[in-house]
Amino acid sequence: RDAFPCLFSRCSASTAKSLLFRFIPILTWLPRYPVKEWLLGDIISGFSVGIMHLPQGLAYSLLAGLPPVVGLYSAFYPVLVYFFFGTSRHISVGPFAVISVMIGSITDSLEPSGKFMEADNDTNVPILNEAKRDAARVQLAAALTFLVGIFQIALGLLQFGFLATYLSEPLVRGYTTAAAIQVLISQLKYVIGVELEEYAGPLALIYTFLELCSKLPKTNVGTLVTSLIAIISILIVKKISDKLGKRIPVPIPTELLTIIIATGISYGAKLNGRFNISVVGEIPSGLVPPKAPVVSYFGQVIGNAFAIAVVSYVICVSLGKIFAFKHGYKVDSNQELIALGLSNFVGGFFQCYSIGCSMSRSLVQESTGGHSQVSAAVSCLLLLVTILKISELFRELPKAILAAIILVNLKGMFKQFKDIHTLWKSNFVDLLIWLVTFVATILLNLDMGLGVAVVFSLLTVIFRTQMPHYSILGQVSKTGIYKDAAEYQKAEEIPGVKIFRSSATIYFANAALYEEALKTKCGIDVEHLIEKKKKALKKKHNKDKKEEKKAKVFLWLKVTLFICFSQEPRGDTTANGPSGSVDDQKYQNLKQPQSSDQPGLMALGLEKPPFHSIILDFSPVNFVDTVSIKTLKNIFKDFQEIEVNVFLVGCNDSVISQLERGNFFSQNITKHHLFASLHHPLWRYVSPVLK
Amino acid sequence: RDAFPCLFSRCSASTAKSLLFRFIPILTWLPRYPVKEWLLGDIISGFSVGIMHLPQGLAYSLLAGLPPVVGLYSAFYPVLVYFFFGTSRHISVGPFAVISVMIGSITDSLEPSGKFMEADNDTNVPILNEAKRDAARVQLAAALTFLVGIFQIALGLLQFGFLATYLSEPLVRGYTTAAAIQVLISQLKYVIGVELEEYAGPLALIYTFLELCSKLPKTNVGTLVTSLIAIISILIVKKISDKLGKRIPVPIPTELLTIIIATGISYGAKLNGRFNISVVGEIPSGLVPPKAPVVSYFGQVIGNAFAIAVVSYVICVSLGKIFAFKHGYKVDSNQELIALGLSNFVGGFFQCYSIGCSMSRSLVQESTGGHSQVSAAVSCLLLLVTILKISELFRELPKAILAAIILVNLKGMFKQFKDIHTLWKSNFVDLLIWLVTFVATILLNLDMGLGVAVVFSLLTVIFRTQMPHYSILGQVSKTGIYKDAAEYQKAEEIPGVKIFRSSATIYFANAALYEEALKTKCGIDVEHLIEKKKKALKKKHNKDKKEEKKAKVFLWLKVTLFICFSQEPRGDTTANGPSGSVDDQKYQNLKQPQSSDQPGLMALGLEKPPFHSIILDFSPVNFVDTVSIKTLKNIFKDFQEIEVNVFLVGCNDSVISQLERGNFFSQNITKHHLFASLHHPLWRYVSPVLK
Repeated sequence: RDAFPCLFSRCSASTAKSLLFRFIPILTWLPRYPVKEWLLGDIISGFSVGIMHLPQGLAYSLLAGLPPVVGLYSAFYPVLVYFFFGTSRHISVGPFAVISVMIGSITDSLEPSGKFMEADNDTNVPILNEAKRDAARVQLAAALTFLVGIFQIALGLLQFGFLATYLSEPLVRGYTTAAAIQVLISQLKYVIGVELEEYAGPLALIYTFLELCSKLPKTNVGTLVTSLIAIISILIVKKISDKLGKRIPVPIPTELLTIIIATGISYGAKLNGRFNISVVGEIPSGLVPPKAPVVSYFGQVIGNAFAIAVVSYVICVSLGKIFAFKHGYKVDSNQELIALGLSNFVGGFFQCYSIGCSMSRSLVQESTGGHSQVSAAVSCLLLLVTILKISELFRELPKAILAAIILVNLKGMFKQFKDIHTLWKSNFVDLLIWLVTFVATILLNLDMGLGVAVVFSLLTVIFRTQMPHYSILGQVSKTGIYKDAAEYQKAEEIPGVKIFRSSATIYFANAALYEEALKTKCGIDVEHLIEKKKKALKKKHNKDKKEEKKAKVFLWLKVTLFICFSQEPRGDTTANGPSGSVDDQKYQNLKQPQSSDQPGLMALGLEKPPFHSIILDFSPVNFVDTVSIKTLKNIFKDFQEIEVNVFLVGCNDSVISQLERGNFFSQNITKHHLFASLHHPLWRYVSPVLK
Repeated sequence: RDAFPCLFSRCSASTAKSLLFRFIPILTWLPRYPVKEWLLGDIISGFSVGIMHLPQGLAYSLLAGLPPVVGLYSAFYPVLVYFFFGTSRHISVGPFAVISVMIGSITDSLEPSGKFMEADNDTNVPILNEAKRDAARVQLAAALTFLVGIFQIALGLLQFGFLATYLSEPLVRGYTTAAAIQVLISQLKYVIGVELEEYAGPLALIYTFLELCSKLPKTNVGTLVTSLIAIISILIVKKISDKLGKRIPVPIPTELLTIIIATGISYGAKLNGRFNISVVGEIPSGLVPPKAPVVSYFGQVIGNAFAIAVVSYVICVSLGKIFAFKHGYKVDSNQELIALGLSNFVGGFFQCYSIGCSMSRSLVQESTGGHSQVSAAVSCLLLLVTILKISELFRELPKAILAAIILVNLKGMFKQFKDIHTLWKSNFVDLLIWLVTFVATILLNLDMGLGVAVVFSLLTVIFRTQMPHYSILGQVSKTGIYKDAAEYQKAEEIPGVKIFRSSATIYFANAALYEEALKTKCGIDVEHLIEKKKKALKKKHNKDKKEEKKAKVFLWLKVTLFICFSQEPRGDTTANGPSGSVDDQKYQNLKQPQSSDQPGLMALGLEKPPFHSIILDFSPVNFVDTVSIKTLKNIFKDFQEIEVNVFLVGCNDSVISQLERGNFFSQNITKHHLFASLHHPLWRYVSPVLK
């Protein structure tokens, strides 16, 4: 759990065993399993969760555009694998709405129904070959799942669990809210019972919504009534179940009851035949043999697979951490990645789609007394029985019922819209992240939206450092505390000294702003002063030159006259004459106008600035780069030019070493310009330019 | 020049005039032009620059895949516009190698030669219709130029000049070095005289290079010899010109001489006819009437136009600032954007390609005594004469000579490879930015490479904050200075107090790391301690429960016996009995285990941590977000649980207000936990948990 540890450096012979225990956590906890205390709770909770898995599995396969039985497989194999490798005791992995809708957009775009239209033998009208389409989609989903697994295992082994930190909470909540909208729109067609085109890519959601609106008149009334009844009754039963609360040992299995009753009614009333209400259809019973994933899909879905891998991991680990915190144990984020990866990897061989971790199931698992993943194993048993024996009974279940179950389960996610209000009051930038994530995910789609959101949330860090608060500090009534002199009345500026602080670190994106703010806040026009000085120097130079020319002429005249009249040797005067050496010196001075022995401001008849020192408070500076070093050098040069000392105060050790490496220190900028603290006795008493 | 000023807020009636003067700088400086002092220098420098414009204009059109005359137009119209609107006195705008090669990659990919193959009337062999291709490419380039102008004007009006800061110096130098490589590879085909396919998109450079290698055996020896002679003689003459240095008033016009001599030889020796050396060909003389840009190209080149707009601006403004700094005047970065934008905008109507600002010409313009853009106007005159009268003479100029001129001019850019060594010694992250920019620009192309480079350089800021230096501070021998206790021997930890500092700001991407580092550096296992406390509490609770059950049984027995034997009223005992009220209280305690009146660690038989307070030094913190606030709350909660005070010290004012807005303060975390400075007398004397 260090930032970037090397996995293999730990692999000495003695640690091999601990490594094994780390990679297969069940070896650690199962032998110590407190049977007497935990088993009953785990069995009850396992049954409750298993009962939820059945309807959710069926419903989420609808979301993923896959045949229902796949949802049952996905609630079985991956969950079993997670039982062995997971470190969270309470999360319920398996089909998850957000992941399912991500898969749905991929199956829709890569294996659209239009691809499987076949001319009917008799009428020659093109008819959808559903069996063929579903088979292709299952293969696609399995390949995707396999790839997601590979990504997660790789990230886990490379200890990239910290990637989750890039998906901050506002981002994840904005994202899941947008995903809920995506789910809602994708399910409405089942609720009103119409067929829609399958759109993919940016704006797909908008197109779907528009088509949905245009097809409203074609609503199948039977389907609509069925779904409305289902939605309302589920909501009522859930309410009752909540009201009863702790008084019943397990919550009412609302969804299971709904699908059982709905299937019964559908059989009895022949809904499919009489009202043309579309039903789930044939569900094969029994398990299927493993099959290698189809490699040819990999290239097309690699980007999506990465997005799914990250999203499913982030949601699982954040949920896992909440439960871990509540119950006082630890979730190992890298091991979670590996566990999820292995679950998906195995799932890829058994026609599963990618799993995540469902909030609603996890809450049930915890609240019905689950203490460990043994409850997951129990739910697996239940599912196994279902797959082998019961699932075929649900043939007549209307799809509208499944849509209703999905929609009711979205309730929690829609509640996240309240975040807007909360964040508006607490943190504007985080609100911006939430909104940008939401809008990008709605307008683009679930994978591109995620990319935009991550980049944007990282850019906010840049934006924040580009709008720092610059201030001139004053000392608070003889204490060691220095505060913004413009805001605190008690903070008084020290005479002759300007203390300048930026609230942000200084680097390439704001270095120029820093220099400008410093020069503005100082209250003098530094450039103008330097220009004036240069002009005065030039004037002086010209004057000197003229005088010197005059002197030379005189000298020449003198020497000539001298020679003419006295005939003494000439060599000495030209070589060592006093005027000659004075010239040389002056020329040298003019060639290096920055050198210390140039005439001062006073000597040139210019006014000195009203302060003798500038203190740059560097305590908020996290690092420096070549651009900020260059800017700093400029600041030193400019102010030293107008005879003002510049000091850096409160530099971090790492900043000092970066300054050293960046050749910041020179003849004019020495380490004497560094002070450890603003309240340092030394710099307050220096007054002339420190050489 | 504020960070984000609103342009239109300044537009009061009185400021309209100053606004006019700001947008048309020539109104300010031309009336004050010191004719006597500057004019001669400007004329000489104008001639020198004009003489360079001619060969460079021809050569860079070759680079841009356009007919040569377009280069002459581009050295005329935009330069004239810049004369009116520019604020730099010394830069020479006009054709520029990096921009030209960017245009070249666009013309190659959107109007490839393959599109203009026509079957020959007689032989039916497909032959390239050069005239048609060139006409299409000129239209494309003009549309692009127009769009670049629009972008630059818009950015300038919106005061987005600060965008340049995102392209830090290492990035720009890495980028131009990669561009130089692109230029080199694109010109080698002219040097060895072979025809190559035109590649576009990622890896185009690699493919071109590979094809070049494979076609080496087909080298046209005549062309190769011509170019080698040209390169060597230009290098020699330049060397001589440098050596003569200040002794000649203007530098030797090497390139002009070269093309004049080469054209002469080409005419005399009939190079084209005899040795099949390809020549420039027909150059139309005279100006062309303006023509509206072709709108249909806009959609295809919009991304490239933005990249060109930014690159040309950044290079111009950085060069302009160097000269401005040297000569003591100011360059207005937003006005520069507008000036360049107008130049390109006008150029778009006159078949010009996008301009930049050439380093070599600018240096000549300054060193030959140019004082203002009057020299640009003079060079324009010279070019006008050339376009009208002389240009057609260069029909027989071999293309290899132009390639040679381009290659020699790259010398300066190749010198930037030395940066690798310099940056390696001075700043590793900046070296990384340089290298990533270079490699991305080589492997992808000039526009995508730029995007990758900008995103990467911004991400480095994130990376830097993810690897902060965490330290426990100690006081340096009774001063107010606190330093890393592990590194400074003199820094001694204050007994019972841990002072913790991170070198970076705390936000979503490193908040978890911060919490972990704090708990590690403290030297105690906080989670373990809390768990132990919870267990002890639970044990105590169970024990209490048992005792209470026992007590209840006893009470029941007692009461029953009492009733049986004394028959007194029963109400009182059950309602107000002492044991009942004690129970209630205890249950309440257990329901809120975090409340302050729960039993302490000592009471539970647990050891207290070896320190009573933790001080978080927040002076390097630039801002906080919801994630960091949540993390901080956790830190407070955890440590208060084990009876350790937590204090925040040295918070910036803006950080405090962000904490307030984020609902950080509560009953358990009050403002009494904030202190202004590390060296504060108060916090050092608190010892028990502060309530």
